[in-house]
Amino acid sequence: MNKIVECVPNFSEGRDLQKIDQIISPFRGKPGVKLLDYSNDEDHNRLVVTVVGEPEPLRDAVLEAIGIAVQLIDLNHHTGQHPRMGAVDVVPFIPIKNVTMEEAIALSKEVGAEVAKRYNLPVFLYEKSASAPHRENLAAVRKGEFEGMAEKIKLPEWQPDFGPAERHPTAGTVAVGARMPLVAYNINLNTPNLDIAHDIAKKIRFIGGGLRYCKAMGVELKDRGITQVSINMTDYTRTALYRAFELTRIEAQRYGVSIVGSEIIGLVPMEALIDTASYYLGLENFSMQQVLEARIMEE
Amino acid sequence: MNKIVECVPNFSEGRDLQKIDQIISPFRGKPGVKLLDYSNDEDHNRLVVTVVGEPEPLRDAVLEAIGIAVQLIDLNHHTGQHPRMGAVDVVPFIPIKNVTMEEAIALSKEVGAEVAKRYNLPVFLYEKSASAPHRENLAAVRKGEFEGMAEKIKLPEWQPDFGPAERHPTAGTVAVGARMPLVAYNINLNTPNLDIAHDIAKKIRFIGGGLRYCKAMGVELKDRGITQVSINMTDYTRTALYRAFELTRIEAQRYGVSIVGSEIIGLVPMEALIDTASYYLGLENFSMQQVLEARIMEE
Repeated sequence: MNKIVECVPNFSEGRDLQKIDQIISPFRGKPGVKLLDYSNDEDHNRLVVTVVGEPEPLRDAVLEAIGIAVQLIDLNHHTGQHPRMGAVDVVPFIPIKNVTMEEAIALSKEVGAEVAKRYNLPVFLYEKSASAPHRENLAAVRKGEFEGMAEKIKLPEWQPDFGPAERHPTAGTVAVGARMPLVAYNINLNTPNLDIAHDIAKKIRFIGGGLRYCKAMGVELKDRGITQVSINMTDYTRTALYRAFELTRIEAQRYGVSIVGSEIIGLVPMEALIDTASYYLGLENFSMQQVLEARIMEE
Repeated sequence: MNKIVECVPNFSEGRDLQKIDQIISPFRGKPGVKLLDYSNDEDHNRLVVTVVGEPEPLRDAVLEAIGIAVQLIDLNHHTGQHPRMGAVDVVPFIPIKNVTMEEAIALSKEVGAEVAKRYNLPVFLYEKSASAPHRENLAAVRKGEFEGMAEKIKLPEWQPDFGPAERHPTAGTVAVGARMPLVAYNINLNTPNLDIAHDIAKKIRFIGGGLRYCKAMGVELKDRGITQVSINMTDYTRTALYRAFELTRIEAQRYGVSIVGSEIIGLVPMEALIDTASYYLGLENFSMQQVLEARIMEE
């Protein structure tokens, strides 16, 4: 694959394995498309799929899977812990290789327009594809969920970007957009005091005056008797992983607390870790072109 | 490519661009073979090719290139700074992906046998493929070079592993073997004192009681007014890069010297750097399967 885009569609079905299998079937055995992972959560009643591909075959497979989900999932009978506003809740496209953010945005808009046309589903563009600042944040778009969307979608500021200004009777609405790869990164502290973890989280995160592309909160790891700064790095190319790690270490010092380790949840682009190695080794004149696997993947 | 082997054949021609082009031509445009890099040095009068591929197509392309080099290069008229014993001086095979060292050794022996048969060239197996401990080290095998090999090859302990016990009249002899990926890694010190760089090198390297898979020497960087510990990491999976870096830092302390930076020369497998990031971040439960590119490369 020369150009690679990742897509992480979230579907509102985490329990019926037969339906789940049908929804992911368009991602299997297609040239130019590779299913990397999928996980369904029964409590959340949600399916998260991770798939990569060349832009066109990926687009076609995603459109097909959305069609199946719209047919199979009825939000009127959906219960689960995770907030949701549609059978297909959110469809982010992420540029991975030889693809610009502009191309990923264009792809998301193409998919959004086609979803509205084929399935008569109202589509909100979000994140980098958003048509207005108040629509960038997924939580803001989704607020009110499926139930509230019946009225919300009639408000002038919540007109969908594509499709009818009316909630689909069973499939609700969907958010489609482009974003940077997200790295879920947690840093473990040798204190059971959740207040400390939360204080540190507040200092390192963007909204607290910390790092630009960093979201964070304090979490208790009861079984280990410690706490954690749970972080989402929303653009590792701008805010590097090691910066969150070192800043956490420095903030922890004033509490006499230290880091016992950290962990990456799910997938991480190699560049995020290689950049970290490069920092600690003080690498001079280093280029990703020196990484054997990067060269092998070139076409 | 599902199984990937790397091959870095060294040819004794660094000046005639037309001949160089002929020698590398078997590595171009072949399915299952990818030419990553080649560099010719006029002073050394040597060509170093880096190619990856699936075992069988790679084997065929390497055999073809060796045939061309044997035809084009006459060692009787070869001068250059780099020691050499043949038109094709050395052919290492390196396991990269889904290939064991045992498979790489088997591949090297298959190529060695075929080179002897097709081109009547004496072949020494070296490194992991060596048939005796005194033949593991390339420098030991090559000692005497093309000129001395006329007599050396007649000694009982230097009988070739394949082919006639007689130097090829124009193409000399060749060493073929399997080895781990080699990472050329240099650490720069803020001192102009070459003795200090050399002392540190002696302490961190294997033969000086240092790290098992580490070769090192002191080098002067005259234009920058500093010195360098120039390192070959011969098995980064056993002796990690960060260990050489930290040990150098610790040894430098007793001289009041510090590290100003480091550099990687040429290609490096991503795992060598990801392992380093993992150390500095104290990653818990991390697997290479979490690296997006590793997953994309899977088949």
